[in-house]
Amino acid sequence: MMHSNDTICALSTASAEAAIAVIRLSGNNAFDVIQQVFRPVSQERFAKAEAYRLYYGSFVDGDELIDEVLVSVFKAPHSYSGEDMLEISCHGSLYIQQRILDALLRHGARMAEPGEFTQRAFLNGKMELSQAEAVADLIASDSKASHKLAIRQMKEGYGKEIEHLRERLLKLVSLMELELDFSEEDVEFADRSELLSLLDDVQSRINKLLESFRYGNVIKHGMPVVIAGKPNVGKSTLLNALLKEDRAIVSDIPGTTRDSLEDDMVLDGIRFRFIDTAGLRKTGDEIETKGIQRAWAKLEKAGLVLLMAETRNPKEEIMGLLQEVQERTKDSGADVFLLLNKADQHEAEDVAFDVPVYGLSAKTGKGIEPLTSAMVEHVKSMRSASDVVVSNARHAAALRQAYEAAERAEEAMKAGIPGDLVSQDIREVLHHLGEITGQITTDEVLGSIFKDFCIGK
Amino acid sequence: MMHSNDTICALSTASAEAAIAVIRLSGNNAFDVIQQVFRPVSQERFAKAEAYRLYYGSFVDGDELIDEVLVSVFKAPHSYSGEDMLEISCHGSLYIQQRILDALLRHGARMAEPGEFTQRAFLNGKMELSQAEAVADLIASDSKASHKLAIRQMKEGYGKEIEHLRERLLKLVSLMELELDFSEEDVEFADRSELLSLLDDVQSRINKLLESFRYGNVIKHGMPVVIAGKPNVGKSTLLNALLKEDRAIVSDIPGTTRDSLEDDMVLDGIRFRFIDTAGLRKTGDEIETKGIQRAWAKLEKAGLVLLMAETRNPKEEIMGLLQEVQERTKDSGADVFLLLNKADQHEAEDVAFDVPVYGLSAKTGKGIEPLTSAMVEHVKSMRSASDVVVSNARHAAALRQAYEAAERAEEAMKAGIPGDLVSQDIREVLHHLGEITGQITTDEVLGSIFKDFCIGK
Repeated sequence: MMHSNDTICALSTASAEAAIAVIRLSGNNAFDVIQQVFRPVSQERFAKAEAYRLYYGSFVDGDELIDEVLVSVFKAPHSYSGEDMLEISCHGSLYIQQRILDALLRHGARMAEPGEFTQRAFLNGKMELSQAEAVADLIASDSKASHKLAIRQMKEGYGKEIEHLRERLLKLVSLMELELDFSEEDVEFADRSELLSLLDDVQSRINKLLESFRYGNVIKHGMPVVIAGKPNVGKSTLLNALLKEDRAIVSDIPGTTRDSLEDDMVLDGIRFRFIDTAGLRKTGDEIETKGIQRAWAKLEKAGLVLLMAETRNPKEEIMGLLQEVQERTKDSGADVFLLLNKADQHEAEDVAFDVPVYGLSAKTGKGIEPLTSAMVEHVKSMRSASDVVVSNARHAAALRQAYEAAERAEEAMKAGIPGDLVSQDIREVLHHLGEITGQITTDEVLGSIFKDFCIGK
Repeated sequence: MMHSNDTICALSTASAEAAIAVIRLSGNNAFDVIQQVFRPVSQERFAKAEAYRLYYGSFVDGDELIDEVLVSVFKAPHSYSGEDMLEISCHGSLYIQQRILDALLRHGARMAEPGEFTQRAFLNGKMELSQAEAVADLIASDSKASHKLAIRQMKEGYGKEIEHLRERLLKLVSLMELELDFSEEDVEFADRSELLSLLDDVQSRINKLLESFRYGNVIKHGMPVVIAGKPNVGKSTLLNALLKEDRAIVSDIPGTTRDSLEDDMVLDGIRFRFIDTAGLRKTGDEIETKGIQRAWAKLEKAGLVLLMAETRNPKEEIMGLLQEVQERTKDSGADVFLLLNKADQHEAEDVAFDVPVYGLSAKTGKGIEPLTSAMVEHVKSMRSASDVVVSNARHAAALRQAYEAAERAEEAMKAGIPGDLVSQDIREVLHHLGEITGQITTDEVLGSIFKDFCIGK
């Protein structure tokens, strides 16, 4: 794939007044550009600038002194982008930041697109595509678990896992395609039983990765927890009780929770997103009915349902509600925890349910702690046996397509369909696996990946 | 002055999600702290870490990988703070920023106070106090002129100017104090005529600096321009006409204007702060009267008054208003520009005023351009002959006190008052001059200077 290496620049630190700011410059002509605007204390030393060194001097625009800056030097290919790269550390005045960018633009650089430094890192072979994607995840990570997932993926990508599968498939499909040249002789270079067992292996590995996506997605975006139940059983009281717990924990890590996400909480490094719903009941009130319809709809998107009832409710009533909820969550596979509230006022009937049951008092807070522990354990138990956790929806989609193609290839082989048709399906498996690491990619794919990156990364 | 050099750390870039963030660590044990949390790619090379070099590696908290980071190394005394200093450049996730700070704090660093790195730079003799103060001004600078003033002061401070005056005074006052040891012999080591001429010189130089403060203050905080006049002469139309002009100019330098400063504009690099006032007239309406009282009060704080009348108004009426306004601005020394509006509808009477007069049409915009040019020229003309421009209110106050003490010393000498009393006044001059550069300072002074700094600077 062709790509340009013209010189790009961008503010890489947050755009606000601060002690310092860092502006990045990367590309073929990065040194030509900097030489026009940077007057190092020692011109002689900077002329022979070494990589991984800092140079102090004046950033000028013509004769005007803009700032005293430090310039970090990185040289291709040993830089983040894989190109010649410079980082200008200046005073964090918005005016100065703007003037420096302005001068760089007038001296031959252009503004970088979001994620363009990382895109170049990928195009220059510094990282595979899934690692580049993990950089954005790492920057957006806001809990211990999402951070851990992102940094691991950034460091290791899918590692050898997918590459190994691709290589084995590639070898066999190449042999199979070679047979076509000798089609009249009816030879088989590719061992069919080896190919079948490989396809089996591919499917089982992909399956494991896909299983991990449910966990990865929860870790990345938070576990959606729907609190449901009949009206006035204490759902909002429970939410408050849960969030109070949250604030205490989150305060250990200031800055990780934003004001707008008031219904989130981080427990043991895992983010839970609570969705309170209208009480579920039959009513003639039109507006309430709409609210209840929405509540049922939310249940379908839940990762976990906290179904709340009161300890004193008759067992049949609770059973009925539970069945309705389970019906609704069948497709999403969300688990249901049954909470029996007001356990401080009433004895629970000694009945068995086919879901975990927690007796608690939302009002006094009794029983909240065992519930939250169980929620954390529940998420942790979702982690599959696979070493690699898929957290990216694009990867999951590619894996699903690879799986389906592998399935088709296997069926075709078993049905004795000719090699050239089978090889097409296997080529498709290779294609979709290659999309994940970036061996196979298009401008559109790259565009859609990097458009959501920060500027300056 | 004693000061501590325990190891401090802070986030130096703006606190928000971004591509990268920089965390600073400075103090005696900076290297001890970093060694506990940084696993360089090459332990061997980092063990012999050189100044002005970048080291790549993992930032860890115990066994947990927090981020892949770049560490910039600076060694005492050749660092910003004058101490051993390290800058950790990490991915700009809020979670990572917090985790890194958290780990540094648990491994022997403490959170830096606002401006503490710069305070240490001053205490370690890296810069004089006025230069340290200019660092904050530079970061806050939001126009070409305020930036220019701040960067000059940061680079040069008061240069030799004040130091030179102090040295000469110090020499003479020391000789004068030596005379006290020989008081019975009635000798004069200090040449009285030299001392008198020196005191004259000191006063004239201080005066020049003080004159420059009016300009420096305007450049730093913007020129307060009060738009006054009778009701409905077009004051608000003028303000709109002026600000429209502003938006076009400011758009060349995005980020320098904030939403909340809608009545500001930057012209030719100088910020003007417009204050629209209620129309000046006598009225029985109680609320309107209060508004008018406030308008008069604002006149007293103006740097420039745009007094607006209509071209068709009788000369006597305009004269009367002008005199009232001049009376009010006598103390502040604000200049008055007389604007005769609606020049497109009426011919101006051919009368002379003792202030600059501009005919214009606020509605059509005719005549606005010559007015804004004149405003810019007016500010530029305030720049005194002094090379150094005082822009800091603390410095101006110290200069005023030094001036008064010099005046007292001069008068005392002329009145033949004994040397020991004169020397006290001269010591006071020395004291106040020393306060500016920081040769003489107290914890309170330092505290009040640095408390307004950014964290991390």
